[in-house]
This record gives sequence, structure tokens and C-alpha cells, in this order.
Amino acid sequence: MDRRLKYERLAEEIAHLIRSGTYQPGAPVPSVRTLAGQKGLSVSTVLQAYYLLEAQGLIQVRARSGFYVSLAPRMATPEPDISTPALDPAKVSVRELVTMLLQDALNPDLIPLGAAYPDPDLSEAGKLNRLMAAIARDMGNRSGRYDMPPGCEPLRVQIARRAAAGGMDLAPGDLITTCGCTEAVNICLRAVCQPGDTVALESPICMDTLQALETLGLRALEIPTHPRDGISLEALTFALDNNPVRACLVISNFNNPLGSLMPEAHKKELVEILARRGVPLIENDIFGDLGFGEQRPPAAKAFDRRGLVMLCSSFSKSLFPGFRVGWTAPGRFLSRVEWLKYTTTTATATLPQLALAEFMAGGGFQQHLRRARKAYAQRLGSIRQAVIRHFPKGIRVTRPAGGFLLWVQLPPGTDSLELYKRALASGIAITPGHLFSASDRYRDFIRLNAAQWSEEWDWAMRRLGRLTVELGGG
Amino acid sequence: MDRRLKYERLAEEIAHLIRSGTYQPGAPVPSVRTLAGQKGLSVSTVLQAYYLLEAQGLIQVRARSGFYVSLAPRMATPEPDISTPALDPAKVSVRELVTMLLQDALNPDLIPLGAAYPDPDLSEAGKLNRLMAAIARDMGNRSGRYDMPPGCEPLRVQIARRAAAGGMDLAPGDLITTCGCTEAVNICLRAVCQPGDTVALESPICMDTLQALETLGLRALEIPTHPRDGISLEALTFALDNNPVRACLVISNFNNPLGSLMPEAHKKELVEILARRGVPLIENDIFGDLGFGEQRPPAAKAFDRRGLVMLCSSFSKSLFPGFRVGWTAPGRFLSRVEWLKYTTTTATATLPQLALAEFMAGGGFQQHLRRARKAYAQRLGSIRQAVIRHFPKGIRVTRPAGGFLLWVQLPPGTDSLELYKRALASGIAITPGHLFSASDRYRDFIRLNAAQWSEEWDWAMRRLGRLTVELGGG
Repeated sequence: MDRRLKYERLAEEIAHLIRSGTYQPGAPVPSVRTLAGQKGLSVSTVLQAYYLLEAQGLIQVRARSGFYVSLAPRMATPEPDISTPALDPAKVSVRELVTMLLQDALNPDLIPLGAAYPDPDLSEAGKLNRLMAAIARDMGNRSGRYDMPPGCEPLRVQIARRAAAGGMDLAPGDLITTCGCTEAVNICLRAVCQPGDTVALESPICMDTLQALETLGLRALEIPTHPRDGISLEALTFALDNNPVRACLVISNFNNPLGSLMPEAHKKELVEILARRGVPLIENDIFGDLGFGEQRPPAAKAFDRRGLVMLCSSFSKSLFPGFRVGWTAPGRFLSRVEWLKYTTTTATATLPQLALAEFMAGGGFQQHLRRARKAYAQRLGSIRQAVIRHFPKGIRVTRPAGGFLLWVQLPPGTDSLELYKRALASGIAITPGHLFSASDRYRDFIRLNAAQWSEEWDWAMRRLGRLTVELGGG
Repeated sequence: MDRRLKYERLAEEIAHLIRSGTYQPGAPVPSVRTLAGQKGLSVSTVLQAYYLLEAQGLIQVRARSGFYVSLAPRMATPEPDISTPALDPAKVSVRELVTMLLQDALNPDLIPLGAAYPDPDLSEAGKLNRLMAAIARDMGNRSGRYDMPPGCEPLRVQIARRAAAGGMDLAPGDLITTCGCTEAVNICLRAVCQPGDTVALESPICMDTLQALETLGLRALEIPTHPRDGISLEALTFALDNNPVRACLVISNFNNPLGSLMPEAHKKELVEILARRGVPLIENDIFGDLGFGEQRPPAAKAFDRRGLVMLCSSFSKSLFPGFRVGWTAPGRFLSRVEWLKYTTTTATATLPQLALAEFMAGGGFQQHLRRARKAYAQRLGSIRQAVIRHFPKGIRVTRPAGGFLLWVQLPPGTDSLELYKRALASGIAITPGHLFSASDRYRDFIRLNAAQWSEEWDWAMRRLGRLTVELGGG
């Protein structure tokens, strides 16, 4: 039986027409709607086929115009293909590697291209700490009390107000504050899954999510994901039809590591596909405030009509992680999640929440986001250019529209774990692709943290490029 | 078949001899060792029988002398009996009640005799907050970084040093910091148990522990526990012989709610009984620093030779809970627990840990403990006297040697949930006994938080006494 998905078959058909000269270099390929109509396929399937061809360098997109056959196929540095993980759930085991990476992350002597940390110099730590000290003085001994779930009301008020920017209509009573986004995702998973259950998620996906699944005894079902548009809805539908999927988990805005941003229409469709089956969607929106565009992209939660979307987020990427403050808006599962929060860590630290609430209320957060978005857009561009300049031919690299992470596909056969080791010996931390799949699928990928940039970083990128060549790439 | 335990049968035998006049009022009963020798029983079994008789008012202990038949049996206000929970594991369900109590705990208009909170005016919040502000200024933007597991080294150094006072030989590398003791207990349970497993624990036991078990899908096996000496080793051995117990969980120093303090010899024996069977002991030592005696009592962990004791604690009772900083020394399970910490909440907040480390290093914690112990001893005494003075005859009340909690047995048949509701209407929060068992065993008990005391509290105790009388007690 042909196990390939529809869009893969369609892409191969078009590729054949290009190679055979039916579609000439520079000429347009059929519009998405036309082809969808001709083939009796959905617009989303045709789009995914075109993305695959674009990633292969066979076609190119022109703004407001459509797709064209490339003039010089494969000369540009393409984005990686849409991923093709195995369509069976896999037990997760990434522990040893993560332990090594945690050591790197604690080592101040390494150039930090590894862990997904924001730039400390953009963190507003000074302002937040001064706010916290002032609040502590005012509150006196009351500052030491438990802040019981659902957690700090002034902060929930601010988060609910800001949710409107993400297209969401949330009240403070819809929110629970947590010890970071990690706790939020954990308790949402526990609220809707039992050990042994299967969770569908994007592939590649950040190690934290895979680890949460592993320790909760859940199975990861990895769904093909496009580096620009996110999870393949066609593949997800196929998975839902063929597996007992208990929940779906996505980072719809600026996925870690892909940086993919689901178009609004895809988010809406995703929510509807899942709602029809009554499957909850756990949405990690931790990078959602770091888009480079004029408008903050909506969360999938914005399209939730049945209370099945469980939004999770925190300040760990947009400000800094040391406060350990996150939140969740778990829809119809509110009461169960609140209970799990209480039994897991009792409460979230009191003062950091109050300081964040005041920072947001005073407009400091908005101001900070404007500065941070601009800085990350520039740095991501610099690192991306350095990859193209210094790495061997044959590599691919993502073009994220937000966040501060890059996903690089090395020349086929390059062992990124070996590259990681050699980079460490040169004082450079990177994250090998092994960590982004439960089925060890991304051995020739690396993730780069592009939150910082200086001359030293340029040196590091040159060095990484040379190490990649030495490993036999290009 | 006679399901009573040996000490219960022995107590009944002695009671018969007292009632029949064989042992006269004021005369000594046989010494513990003598009787143990005569009956071929262990010293611990005879002691438990004597405690039971003492709780029934039939015998009294005289310091450095032994046990005597009471001159006026039942005239004094006795401690509650050793508990007699059902010897079958029970599914836990205490959620609704806890949700109500959380509301009370957030209500500043109530006299807080309910939740187990330390006195905010003894919290050193001012000092700690000033330390935190100073550290934040010194560290600048670095203060915002993740403090990855095992967590803040300076704090682990201080905790390891202080562990010597609890008889433990710990190195900083044996410790992992956590978001409070609740997270420590949770990840220790997850490290050694799977859903469906049975955990043996003291009865009565604080609701937090029961809730952790419930949400992790674990079964609670409640073991009879003496209000002075803690868990019955005989009953525990019986339980271990007859149930698939995967772990044991105790608060060996000043149990919540009993205030019981296991004698050193019992702790040692407990560790040995479990070690012989390879069963891990999760020890919650959160009240261990709040003993009223000259010496800090050792933790059971002090007798751990095989790395099977998983010590859990925090600053939430000894200082204040708002920082959310706890720790665990999980013995041979260190690596698994560290991993669970990472996947559950990633890290513990950075600055509060550093502030606590500096507070301890400067001697502030020691100084604070001296003051807190004295204050809590006095207040516990005041509330205890108020119980004896204002509550109807027939009640029993514990005589803890540490902590700030009292456990009161109301006259038989009194519904403490009804008392809780009427007390609330009078502006007083208490904790009904329903919350301290998975099998709803303590309906005629209440727990009182004795951390604070003033004239208002005296009024509250009088009111509680009157409400108890109105409910038909005495």
C-alpha cells in the first residue's frame, strides 16, 4: 500500500512535470485554487505540496503573485523539507543528551548557540527586580504568604487584557498561574491524559515537550510539520483516523525548533478538526509575543468555541526565565487543572507575579516587546546569513518570522552529535537534532539560538561552518 | 479471625487488670521491658499498648519513673487514642473540601485557625526581601537566568551543612532544590511509584499528601499512628506483610496534624523494616526544625544506610511559603528525581534561593529558629489550654513537642464539618477532620493552627467551644 500522503504524491507529480519541461523555468505553476479544483484536493494539501517543492528548490513563491518554477533550481539556500516522521507512536528517550546540554547551559564560557534562552541584556531584569523590591517593602510580612491557585489576581487581569492581542477573549477567571510554561503543559497533559495514552504533536518538537511526555508515560505521535506553516493538517487528520489520539500539542506561533507560524486559516481548521473528534488541543504559545510582523499572530485558542483548547505560556522567552512564572487558560478543564496545580506545587511564588503584573500594567512589557522583536529579527537575520555564508553547500536553513531559533539541515549524512562535540571543544554550544524527535529522526540537523549576536558570534559561525565541512559535509 | 493488633489485645488485658483492681490507682504497672519479656512481645508493642491505655486515661506516665495507674481516670484531658484506620488501601477523594478551605485561607477577615500557615510576623520576610533586592542589584541581568537542576549551589551547601543538626551526613551533591516541599514529595512519589501502586502512610495525615496520591493515581494505605510516637511499626509491618506496598511516606518529626514525634529508636527501626523489604521511605521533614526541645530531633534519613530514604522539606513552615523553595535528598533515586524536577517545572526561581542561601550563611536562619520555636511553644500551649478550658468535657487534645498544630477529638458523634461551617459564620477558620483520611475516618476531629495568639484568638476559642456544645457535644 502507498503510505505516502496526498501532498507528497502531488508534489512528485508536479516535480516530474518540471523536470520534463512541461513547466518551464520562470513560468508560473497552476494557482493553488485551480489545482485543488482540478485534482479534487483541499487547498491545504496543494499548499503543502507546493511547500515541499519550494523546499526542494524546484519552485519559488513571489509575493502577491503565486508560485513559479525556479530559474536556477537548488542555487538558493532552501528551507528544510516538510518533515516526514514515522506515523507510529514512539516511546520517548532523550534523557542522557539533555543532561549533557544542561551542563552546557550552565557553562558561562561557551558561546550560547545551544539552549533556547533569550538575551539576558534584553531581559529587563533590573526593572523587574526593582519593582519586586518596592512591592516587598510595601507589603511587609504579607509578601511571604502563599498565593494559592488560581494565582495572583492582578497578574491574571493583565494577562487576560493582553490576550486580546492574540485574538483571545479571556477573563482573569479563565487563567491559572504556574511555575513556568513547563508546569502549565505538564498539568494540562495530566488533566486530559492517562499513562499509555497517545499525544499527537509537531515534528520536530522541542525536547522539553518530549521529556514531559516521557516522564508522564505518554506516547508521542509525531506529525509532519512544515518549516513555515506548521503541522500538516492532512497528516494530522490521517493520524487521528488511525490512532487513539487523546490530545494534540502544538506550538502554533514560532515552533521550537522550526520557527513555523501556522496561518490563521490553518489554526481555525486545526481547532475544528480536533473539536469534531472531541480531542483537546494543548497550545504552547510561549513565543507568540515575539513575531516580527506588525500584528501579533492570533493563538489557535482564539478559534476555540468548545473550551477544548488549553493555552499555555510564560515570560521565560519574552522576558526571562528566572522568575518561573507562566500561565494556562485550560478552557473546560479549568477546575481539574487548578486542582493539579495545587497538588503539584501548591502555589506559584508570590512576589515575582506581583512584579510582573505591575510591569505589564505600567506599559513596560509592551515597550519591551517592541525592542525585543526588532533585536531578535536582526540577530536571527545575522545568524541566518552567517549560516549561508560559512556552512558548506547543500545545507538548508529555516526563515522564521518570529522567535529567536534557527533550524539547520546539514549536508546528508552529517552527524550533528559529532558536530556538537567538536563545537563544544571550540567553546561553542549548539543543540544537535537528535533531541527533537522520539524516533531519532533529525541526526543531520542542528538548532541554533539566535538571541544574541556580536563579533564573537561571527567567529563561532565561521568555526561551526568549518567543522561541518571537516565532518564531510558539502 | 481476631483482626486486632497485638498491642490492642495487650492494652485490653491490662485495662481489665486495672478495672478489676489487680493494679491499684497510683501503683506502678510493670515496666515496659519486664512486660515485653514476660509476654514475648517487642518493647515497641508494649509501649504502644501503654500509650493506648494512657490515651484512655487509665494510666499515666511519670518522668524518669515509668507508667502508673491513674489516680482519677478520665479526669485529665487525654490525648486522642492511637488511630485505627481501616487496613485496606482506599482511593482518595478530598477535593471539594480542600477547595473550600483554600477560599478560607485567602480570606483575611477570618481568624486563621484553619490552614497550617506559620505566623507572618515571625517570617523574616523583610530581611529576606532586602537580601533578595541586594543580590538582584549585584547580579544585574544574570539574575534572570534559569537555575537548572539540581538547583542553586550556595543554597545546597547551606542545607547540607544544616542537615548535620538533623543527624544527617549530606553533601550539596545529594540535594535537589524544588518549588516547595509539595513538588519534592510529588517527584519522589513519581520516581518510585506507578499509578495504581499502594503507599503506606500515617493516619491521620495532612490533606496535601492525600491529594498528591489521588492525582498521581496512587492508593493510600493508612497505618495506625500514635499522637506522641508516630506511626505504629507493628501495624506497618503487618501492612507490609499483607499488601503490595511500593513506598512508605511519613512525617516523622511533628506530623501534620498529630504533632507526633517518632523516638529515635523507632525511626531507626522504621528505616530497617523498610530496608529489609527494599521499600523506599519518603520522609517529609518540613516541621523538623520547629521542635521545642534543646536538640533538633534527627530525621529518619539519619539512619539510612542503603539510600532508600528520600528526605523532603522546605522553608514554608519554618520561615514562610511565598518564596516556594524546598528541597529533597532522594538517596539512590537522585538522578531520576532530578530528571523529574527538570521535566515538571524546569527550574526553581533563582533569586529566592540565593536570598535564602545568604540568610542561612549569615546565621539569620538559626537565630530565627530559636525565636520561632519559643513563640510556637508558647502559643501552642495557650491554644491547648483554651481548648481544655472552653470545650465541653469528653474532648481529647494532642500535646505536641514541636510545630504549631493541634489535633482535637470532639465528643463522640460531633460533626466537625458542621462545626467548621458554624465557625466560618462566626469569622473563624478551622480544618475539619474529614480532610485527614482517605476513608473519612476523622469526622469528629478538628485541626487547629496554633501559630498565632492574641485576645482575639481567646475569643475565637471560647466561641468554638460554645459552638461545639451547641452541636450536642459534652
